[in-house]
Amino acid sequence: MGSDSSARTQVAIVGAGPAGLTLGHLLHLQGIDSIIVERSSRDHVEKRLRAGIIEQPGVDLLVAAGLGDRLLREGMVHGGFYLRYDNTTHYLDFHPYTGQHATVYGQHELVKDLIAARIDTGRPLVFEAEVTDISPTGPAAGVRYRTATGEDTIEADFVVGADGFHGAGRAAIPASVRNELIREYPVSWLGILAESTPAAPEGMYCPHPDGLSVHSMRGPRLSRQYLQVPAGTELAEWSDDRIWAELSRRCAASDAAPLETGPIIERSLAPLRSYVAGTMQYERLFLAGDSAHIVPPTGAKGLNLALSDVCVLSHALGAAVNHANTDHLAGYTATALPRVMAAQRFSALLTTTLHALPGDGFTEALRRATLDRWVGSPAAQHELGEVYLGLPFPTAPLYPVAAGSPG
Amino acid sequence: MGSDSSARTQVAIVGAGPAGLTLGHLLHLQGIDSIIVERSSRDHVEKRLRAGIIEQPGVDLLVAAGLGDRLLREGMVHGGFYLRYDNTTHYLDFHPYTGQHATVYGQHELVKDLIAARIDTGRPLVFEAEVTDISPTGPAAGVRYRTATGEDTIEADFVVGADGFHGAGRAAIPASVRNELIREYPVSWLGILAESTPAAPEGMYCPHPDGLSVHSMRGPRLSRQYLQVPAGTELAEWSDDRIWAELSRRCAASDAAPLETGPIIERSLAPLRSYVAGTMQYERLFLAGDSAHIVPPTGAKGLNLALSDVCVLSHALGAAVNHANTDHLAGYTATALPRVMAAQRFSALLTTTLHALPGDGFTEALRRATLDRWVGSPAAQHELGEVYLGLPFPTAPLYPVAAGSPG
Repeated sequence: MGSDSSARTQVAIVGAGPAGLTLGHLLHLQGIDSIIVERSSRDHVEKRLRAGIIEQPGVDLLVAAGLGDRLLREGMVHGGFYLRYDNTTHYLDFHPYTGQHATVYGQHELVKDLIAARIDTGRPLVFEAEVTDISPTGPAAGVRYRTATGEDTIEADFVVGADGFHGAGRAAIPASVRNELIREYPVSWLGILAESTPAAPEGMYCPHPDGLSVHSMRGPRLSRQYLQVPAGTELAEWSDDRIWAELSRRCAASDAAPLETGPIIERSLAPLRSYVAGTMQYERLFLAGDSAHIVPPTGAKGLNLALSDVCVLSHALGAAVNHANTDHLAGYTATALPRVMAAQRFSALLTTTLHALPGDGFTEALRRATLDRWVGSPAAQHELGEVYLGLPFPTAPLYPVAAGSPG
Repeated sequence: MGSDSSARTQVAIVGAGPAGLTLGHLLHLQGIDSIIVERSSRDHVEKRLRAGIIEQPGVDLLVAAGLGDRLLREGMVHGGFYLRYDNTTHYLDFHPYTGQHATVYGQHELVKDLIAARIDTGRPLVFEAEVTDISPTGPAAGVRYRTATGEDTIEADFVVGADGFHGAGRAAIPASVRNELIREYPVSWLGILAESTPAAPEGMYCPHPDGLSVHSMRGPRLSRQYLQVPAGTELAEWSDDRIWAELSRRCAASDAAPLETGPIIERSLAPLRSYVAGTMQYERLFLAGDSAHIVPPTGAKGLNLALSDVCVLSHALGAAVNHANTDHLAGYTATALPRVMAAQRFSALLTTTLHALPGDGFTEALRRATLDRWVGSPAAQHELGEVYLGLPFPTAPLYPVAAGSPG
């Protein structure tokens, strides 16, 4: 695509994160054309550190789509998480209740795999393309974007906005239609990637009166750790020494060795917020992933919701494009949203239970009782683990090709 | 006991509700003397309408103590509850997950049984006795009370305050020691007893945008129903017609017959509040039941917590009085409180999920997602049902008599 060019495709996908790239591949498997445009550079998206826990249904989807080779080879398989509070470490082992696992695999690693797979298909993927307009209505939908070489236009049967909360996709749906709900938490996560031995063999949450600390692993000598910090704090306020002192203090327990420190090779601040679009579609435009919902990082559901969304959407687009059956597209929100809300509920429960948040003493005592319940009741662990390891996706990823049926 | 008399006993019990009366009987079974004093008349306590759902461990305790004959004969055995919202009725059947049942038996019926059993033992039970002073300290504890015939004093090894939130027992513990937490909800329950066929074969919660309605049964033609009403409403504002119209509207569903109405034979208003004393004891004084904790009626845990408390307390008093082992009394709070907090958590969860309460749209959407989760997940039903049907009591009711051991 050169200067002021125009292209035609079946599905225009805005955003080359896990949602857009996975959807492009699932469409490819159904023989459906797509063009993916991404605002950032390839290098940027391949290095962007994000969540790293993929639910069993997500792993199953990626493997079934032929996207899971390296994931299976390099991912670390976990069955639950650690919970440490009041000087005692507990392991919540969810695997026995559900037979499922979660796989620890950095989102940027997955993005690398997805980009490589996209390039293998020979289908278009345009980086450093800033979308300037999305037209969701009319006989065909349109996406206009700007690159270093000029303005380009895509004419498409359908457009998918997989470009996040601040993206053009969400903005192209009238606010009155989106039916949005938002909750801001008064805290952020200060995240670090460090060359240090992880504090526990699987992820660990350490609720503490001064705030949560989270300790997860990316490798035997690579730790990803988070500190609850007040919203509005600046990275400049957090020296390496202060970060390590807080992490160490909050996760200290007499039944555990002191936290190992090491060089911090990346750091970031992320606000905690919940957002959900009660309507994920408008005319020929469909939202998937962060453009349709954001969860606080507690529980690591963001990437997984993206995979669940595109599973449903690829099925619905397959029906529409290949079988002229638009019922599934019409029902996209109704099909996808209940699982989104189940994950929102789970994420909010974990967030409010694990963080030190403003509240009266009774609220604090209930938080503690909830932790005790999780630790003490196999039934509670089953309930929690069922969502943590991943509720089933609402549909199969590919619309079935029924012999002799127009769809 | 006549005018200005004095008596000596091992355990003075203030309050002849389920907590005090059951404790008196469990002490009797261990050969321990007690005097029970109650502010109200026998007639009043035997007619005072309260909760009517007894958990399996409570039933087991009463039966084991020889107090369960009529309860087993007349009580209705339920395995879960109904949940009706968005025009659809669901039954949450907890029994298969736990093998337990809840027994519907009016608290005032239980109180009648307990009073009859007390009288059978020949041990003192004084009605219309207003406690004017409790001395929890010193070599012996003291209770002073006033009757129509004068002032009386009890000298006791131990005093149990089983006389509710507003009673003398709680007040006799310094506030700085009680370590209390309180939460007030901005709603009340308007309760009625009516001669009408219950809306469902077991208890039913109907969450509704205008407020919860609760429909339970006391007999084939006797219904106990509740309406969520704003805190501060007056009974005078609620005509029979208005009550029935609201109950009918909130529980209406296309899969159910309209609510049957009938003569209302009793009505009451109860505020919703949570209260917990983090310390349930002080020197020779021990709190049990409502004096130590109040739960909102949602989930029907109040009576059951009273039974759980006195189970622990009877065991500890047995050890102290009969075996000179005061360790269990010293550990009473530590033993009893975790189960109290588990019930508080459960009651708060049901209360916040089932009621229409002030909150933003996101909170409302999470409430709805929680209802959907309860209805949709067997694991969630198991978790919920385990607490609803009754977590195990923390101890056996009677301290074991070990041969050759001083205790």
